[in-house]
Amino acid sequence: MICPGISYSDYYIAEQSVSIEQLISNLSESNIPNGLDRKQFTEILIETLGVQFVYVDDRKNELLRFHQLLQRYFLQYSSTPEEIDVLIYAAGDSIASGHSWAENDSECINIAYSVKHEFKLDNALLFNVAVECASTLIAMRIALSMLRDRSARKVLILSRNFYTNDRRLSLMGKGTLVSDGAGIIELSADKTDCSIIDFVSIEDNRISKFSDFITKSQLVVELGANAIKTLVERNSIKIHEISMIIPQNTTRFAWQRYCKILDIPISKVFLDNISDYGHVGDVDTIRNLTDVWRRGKGFINVGDFVILYTIGTGTTWAAILIQKTENS
Amino acid sequence: MICPGISYSDYYIAEQSVSIEQLISNLSESNIPNGLDRKQFTEILIETLGVQFVYVDDRKNELLRFHQLLQRYFLQYSSTPEEIDVLIYAAGDSIASGHSWAENDSECINIAYSVKHEFKLDNALLFNVAVECASTLIAMRIALSMLRDRSARKVLILSRNFYTNDRRLSLMGKGTLVSDGAGIIELSADKTDCSIIDFVSIEDNRISKFSDFITKSQLVVELGANAIKTLVERNSIKIHEISMIIPQNTTRFAWQRYCKILDIPISKVFLDNISDYGHVGDVDTIRNLTDVWRRGKGFINVGDFVILYTIGTGTTWAAILIQKTENS
Repeated sequence: MICPGISYSDYYIAEQSVSIEQLISNLSESNIPNGLDRKQFTEILIETLGVQFVYVDDRKNELLRFHQLLQRYFLQYSSTPEEIDVLIYAAGDSIASGHSWAENDSECINIAYSVKHEFKLDNALLFNVAVECASTLIAMRIALSMLRDRSARKVLILSRNFYTNDRRLSLMGKGTLVSDGAGIIELSADKTDCSIIDFVSIEDNRISKFSDFITKSQLVVELGANAIKTLVERNSIKIHEISMIIPQNTTRFAWQRYCKILDIPISKVFLDNISDYGHVGDVDTIRNLTDVWRRGKGFINVGDFVILYTIGTGTTWAAILIQKTENS
Repeated sequence: MICPGISYSDYYIAEQSVSIEQLISNLSESNIPNGLDRKQFTEILIETLGVQFVYVDDRKNELLRFHQLLQRYFLQYSSTPEEIDVLIYAAGDSIASGHSWAENDSECINIAYSVKHEFKLDNALLFNVAVECASTLIAMRIALSMLRDRSARKVLILSRNFYTNDRRLSLMGKGTLVSDGAGIIELSADKTDCSIIDFVSIEDNRISKFSDFITKSQLVVELGANAIKTLVERNSIKIHEISMIIPQNTTRFAWQRYCKILDIPISKVFLDNISDYGHVGDVDTIRNLTDVWRRGKGFINVGDFVILYTIGTGTTWAAILIQKTENS
C-alpha cells in the first residue's frame, strides 16, 4: 500500500527589515483603525503579536530565492531531478513574475518554468494552485492523490509570499503583520519519516475578505475548530491524542478561543514563530513545520500525531493530519 | 477498475459584439504590426482567421454566467450536488473577482465560493488552478488522479475568460482574436460515455510570453507535435487511428505545419470554431469538445479516439487522449 508523506522542507525569509514604527508611520490614514493614533496602534501591534520588524524582499529576487533553496535540496538530500513527477507552484497570483502579454523586449520570467528548466526536472508536470494563504496545504492535498494513484513518485511544492511587493503594505486586515519569504516542501510516495493520514477542508463565502476576519472573528474560529474536530473524529483519534497543532502566524489570541472550543491546552499549539517575522503567507505552513521538525526528538517524537492548519481568504479552512513515523 | 471520463459539458459565449474594424481602430499604435496600416491589419485578420466580430462581457457578470450554466446542468443532467467532491476554478488569475484586501464596504465576490454556496455543493473541495489557456486541461489532469484514487466521485471544473476586462484588449500577440465566455465540464469516476485514457504535457521556458509564439513559431509547433506523438505512442495507438484532434481556436495556419510533422490530413483537426468567436481562452477546450459531441453520431462514433490539445503561455503544451465509449 502507498503511504505518502512529507520527505523534505526548507524555507527562506527576507533579510531587509522595516521596524513596526517605520511601517505604521508610512501607512495611509485609512489603514489606521478608528479611534487610535499611530503611536497607540504601533504599541498595540507590538504588544499583541510581539513582532518588532517585518522583512521585505523584491519580487525580482524570487527566482534567486528558489535557486538557493533547490540547490541546497539537491545537495543535502537524496532526491534526483528525474524522480520529481509533479512541480506545484503554490502562489496567490499568476505563474509569471513578468507580463506574458508584454512587448518583445520586456522581462518575463515564469518562475516555475525557469526552476524546472534550471534543475532539469524533465518529468515534472507543472501547475499553479492559488487558494490564498491555504495554497500550500491545498497543493499538498492534490499531491496526495497523485502519489496515491501512482502517477507521481515525488511532488515538489514551491511556495512564496511577496506581499509587500504585490500590495505595497505589510499590514493585512489592520491586525496581521506580514513578511516576505519562500519555501519548498517535498512529498513522496514512500520512504518518508512522516505519513500524511488525512485532509479536511471547509469552504464558506460568509468570510470573503480580510476585513471579515475582524468583524466575524467568532465564525472564523468556529468553522476552523470544526475542520479540526472533523479531521480527528473521522480518523478515530481523540483530540487529546494530538501532540501539536501547527497553525499559521496570523493571530495569537484567536487560539485561546480555538482551544476553548477544542478543549485542549494552548501549549499544544505551536505559536513560537509569530513574534519573529509574523505571517509569511502560505510559506507559514512550510516554515512552521520545518522549525518543529528541526527541534527534533523530545519536541516531536515517533508516533506523534500533528495537525497542520491554515486559512485561505475566500474562505477555505484546511487541516492535514500527519504522523511522525521515524527519527530522521 | 475505475475508468474516469467526461460526463457533461456546456458553455456560454458573450453576446455583445465588437467588429474587427472597430477593435482595430481603437488599438494603440504599439498593437499594430510594423509595416501595416490599420486597414491592412484588419483585412489580414479577417482573411486569415475568418473572425468578423469579437464578443465582450463584463466581469461583473461572471457569477451570473456560472449561475445559468449550473442551473441548466442540474436541470438537464442527473448529477446531485452532494456527489460533487471537487470544484476546480480554472482561471488565469485570483479566485476573487473583487479585492479580498479591500475595505469593509467594497464588493468582493469569490466566484467559486459563491457557486459552491448557491448550489449547495457541500462536499466539494475547492481550489483554483492557473496555467493560462491550458488551465482547463490541467484541471482535468488533476481531477483524473482524484477520481482514480477514489477521493472524488465527480469533479466539476469552472472555466472562464474575461480577457477584454482583464487586459482591455481582444487581440493577443498581434494575431489572435479573443472573445469572453465561460464553460463547465464534469468528470466522473464511472458511467460516462467518454473515457479519459491518458495525459501528456511538455513544459518549456523558451516560449515565455505571447510574442514568442510569433518569433519562435516553429518551436511551438514542434514541441506541440511531440506531445501528441508521445501520447499516441505510449498508448500503442497509431496516429492514423486518431479520429480527431480538438485544438484551441488560436491559429488555423499552424495546423498545416502540425499535420505535416504528424503526417495526418488537416481534415482530422477540428477547426470549425475559429471563425465564430475566435479564441475564448481555456474555455475553448470545453466549447470545442461540447460542439464536437453535439454533432453526434457520424461525426464522432463509439470507439473513436480523440485528442484534446492546448497550449498555456509559460509555456505548457498539454494533450489528453479520450475515447468515445457509448452513444449518449
